[in-house]
Amino acid sequence: MREIGIEQLADIARGAGILGTGGGGDPYVGLLLAREAVRRHGPVTVVDIDEVPADATVVPISSMGAPTVLLEKLPSGREEINALRALEAVLGRPATHLVPIEIGGVNSMIPLAAAAQTGLPIVDGDAMGRAFPEAQMVLPGLIGVSNSPMALADDKGNTIVVRAVDNTEAERIARAVCVERGCQISCADTVLRGDQLRDGLVPATLTLAENLGRVVREAHAAHRDPVAEARELLGGVHLSAGKVVDVERRTEGGFARGRARLEGEGAVLELDFQNEHLLARRDGRVVATTPDLICVLDTETGEPVTTEGLRYGLRVTVLAAPCDPRWLSPAGLALTGPRYFGYDLDHHPLSG
Amino acid sequence: MREIGIEQLADIARGAGILGTGGGGDPYVGLLLAREAVRRHGPVTVVDIDEVPADATVVPISSMGAPTVLLEKLPSGREEINALRALEAVLGRPATHLVPIEIGGVNSMIPLAAAAQTGLPIVDGDAMGRAFPEAQMVLPGLIGVSNSPMALADDKGNTIVVRAVDNTEAERIARAVCVERGCQISCADTVLRGDQLRDGLVPATLTLAENLGRVVREAHAAHRDPVAEARELLGGVHLSAGKVVDVERRTEGGFARGRARLEGEGAVLELDFQNEHLLARRDGRVVATTPDLICVLDTETGEPVTTEGLRYGLRVTVLAAPCDPRWLSPAGLALTGPRYFGYDLDHHPLSG
Repeated sequence: MREIGIEQLADIARGAGILGTGGGGDPYVGLLLAREAVRRHGPVTVVDIDEVPADATVVPISSMGAPTVLLEKLPSGREEINALRALEAVLGRPATHLVPIEIGGVNSMIPLAAAAQTGLPIVDGDAMGRAFPEAQMVLPGLIGVSNSPMALADDKGNTIVVRAVDNTEAERIARAVCVERGCQISCADTVLRGDQLRDGLVPATLTLAENLGRVVREAHAAHRDPVAEARELLGGVHLSAGKVVDVERRTEGGFARGRARLEGEGAVLELDFQNEHLLARRDGRVVATTPDLICVLDTETGEPVTTEGLRYGLRVTVLAAPCDPRWLSPAGLALTGPRYFGYDLDHHPLSG
Repeated sequence: MREIGIEQLADIARGAGILGTGGGGDPYVGLLLAREAVRRHGPVTVVDIDEVPADATVVPISSMGAPTVLLEKLPSGREEINALRALEAVLGRPATHLVPIEIGGVNSMIPLAAAAQTGLPIVDGDAMGRAFPEAQMVLPGLIGVSNSPMALADDKGNTIVVRAVDNTEAERIARAVCVERGCQISCADTVLRGDQLRDGLVPATLTLAENLGRVVREAHAAHRDPVAEARELLGGVHLSAGKVVDVERRTEGGFARGRARLEGEGAVLELDFQNEHLLARRDGRVVATTPDLICVLDTETGEPVTTEGLRYGLRVTVLAAPCDPRWLSPAGLALTGPRYFGYDLDHHPLSG
C-alpha cells in the first residue's frame, strides 16, 4: 500500500501514454483530470493485487470513445462517478476498489481521479497491460468474467445500463450509445472479485507506468537517450526512427482510425491504427502486430505520441514491446490478434 | 372489464392501423403476433381506466424502430417480456397492468400479446390516441411523467436500461441503440400509476379501434362505403381520393421517412411522413398537419395503408381526423406539432 500524490501523476501519465500504444487518450488531458481531482480531494491509496481481500468488489472505470474527440470533449469527473453509482445500484453493493481497465494516457488517470473523488483505493494493475480499442478486449473475458452489467454515463447526466449476452454484444451496444452521445462516454463495467485479480489483471502496471515515465523524464533531463532507456525497461525492440510524412485519419464508428507513414533510417514505416496501433510494416513487410505493444515516442524527449497526436513533421521513434503472454493464447489472439481486426495474417513474433 | 379473444383481434388491428396514421407497424404483422399469443395463452382481460386501482403499476410495452424493417424482422414475443422484466427489476415492483403506448397496427397488438403471455390485464387506452414516431411524444410527458427508466430488449437477449435527464434524451439514446440493433427493439417505459391514467392516457382507444375495424369490415362486406363510415366514426374530413403515383422512401436514423404523391379528384395530394404521416398538401397548399390524424385507407376495402405499405398504383382515400385536444395545447404542439418536425408552419386547423 502506498499513496499517489500530485508529484507522481506526471510520470504515470507519461508512462501510461507509452504503454497505451498510441491509444487510451492524450496523457496531458489525463494528467489535468487526475491533478485536479487529487488537488481537490487529496492523494490516492494504491494497493497491490495481493493486498485486496478475496471478496472485494473491484470496479474498472474508463472512458470510451474516439481519442480525437476526447481532446475537445473532456470528461468532467462527474460522469465517471455517475457510471460508478449506476453500476453499484444494479450490483446492489458498493465498489470497494477501483482499477484502470487499461493503461493509457487518460484511461489510467480517470480511475485515479475517481479514486480521489470517492476515497476508494485503486488497485495497481489493469485489465489489458496496454490499451485496446474495444471493451471486450480484457483479460477478465478470458476467465469468463462478464462485462455486464455495464454502466455508461454521458456528460449530461444520462445513464445507461447494458446487460448483454456476451462481452462483444455489450461493446457494440455501448459503442452505439457512445457515438450518439458525441463519441465520448464514461463506463463502469467488468466487475472483479478480489480473488479474480491475479487472473484478470496485469499486475503493477501503475507502478510500471510511473517507473517508465520517470526513466524517460530523467534521461531527457540528463541529456541521455530517453527512447533507448524506455525500450530497455520494456524489453522492447527498435522498429524505426524518422519523420512522420503522412497521416490519414478518420473518426468512424466511435473510433479514431487511420494510417501513418514515417520515413527514416532508409526505410518507410507504416502504422495502422484503430485508437491504438494495430500493425507496423517496414518497407511493406509486417514487423509488429497487435497484441504486442507498438509505441511511438518523440525521438528527442521520449514523450509518448498518441495516434491522434501524430502529425506531419514529428520526429518519432517506434518501438515494439511484448504484450502480456496471456494475449498470445488462442483465446487471447481471437480477441485481440490481427485477424480480429480484419488482417489476413497471424501474430508476428517480436525479434530483438 | 371484458375479454378480448381471437375473434376481436382482426377488427382491433384494422382499426388501430387506421388510427396509427400510417405508422405503428403493419396491422397484419400485429394481428399475427397477437393471434399466436392469444391462441397459446388464452384471452386477454381488458379494463377501463376507472377500473384501475390508484396505486396500480401500469406499464406501456411497445416496439421502436422503422416499420419498413419490422415487416421483415418480427418481434418474437420474447423481447417484449425481456423488456418488461428488465423494467420491473429496476422499478423493484412488478407491473400490475399493461397498456399500449400508441394505437397503431403493431404497437396496439404487442401489449395484447404480452398481456396474454403474462396474464396481466390490459388497460383500454393509450398514451397518444394515435401513433407518433418518437418516444417522448406521449401525454404522460405533458403531466411530468418520465419515460425513464426505459428498458429496451433486442432479439438476442440483450437488455438496456436508460435513465435520462428528460424524455427526449431517452428517445435519442434508445433510438441509437435501436438503429445499431437492426432498427427494431422492444421497449417498456413511461410507467404510470393508476391515478395518472385519466391525465396520461386517451381512454378507450382499444374499444375505438375495435369499433372502427368492425365498421369498416361490415361496410365493405355489405358493399357500402367503408371509408365514408370510418370518416364518420372518427369525425374526420375527406382530404382526397386517388391513385398513388410516387413514393420516395428511406430508412434513416431509425425511422421510415419519405413522401408520397397521389393524383385524383383533379388534384395532387402530397403526404410527408416519418413513420407516421406528418403533413398533407393539396396542390401545394397545406390541408392537414400533425398532431391531427392523417389516415390513408384503401378506397375499396377501407383497410389501413401504412407508410411502408404505400406503393405505386394503390387506390387510396386520405382522411384527416382531430387528435386528442391535449395535443393542441402549447406544450402538446411543442412535442408533436409541425415545428418540432422542422416545418416552418403552425398546426393547420381541420375544417369539415
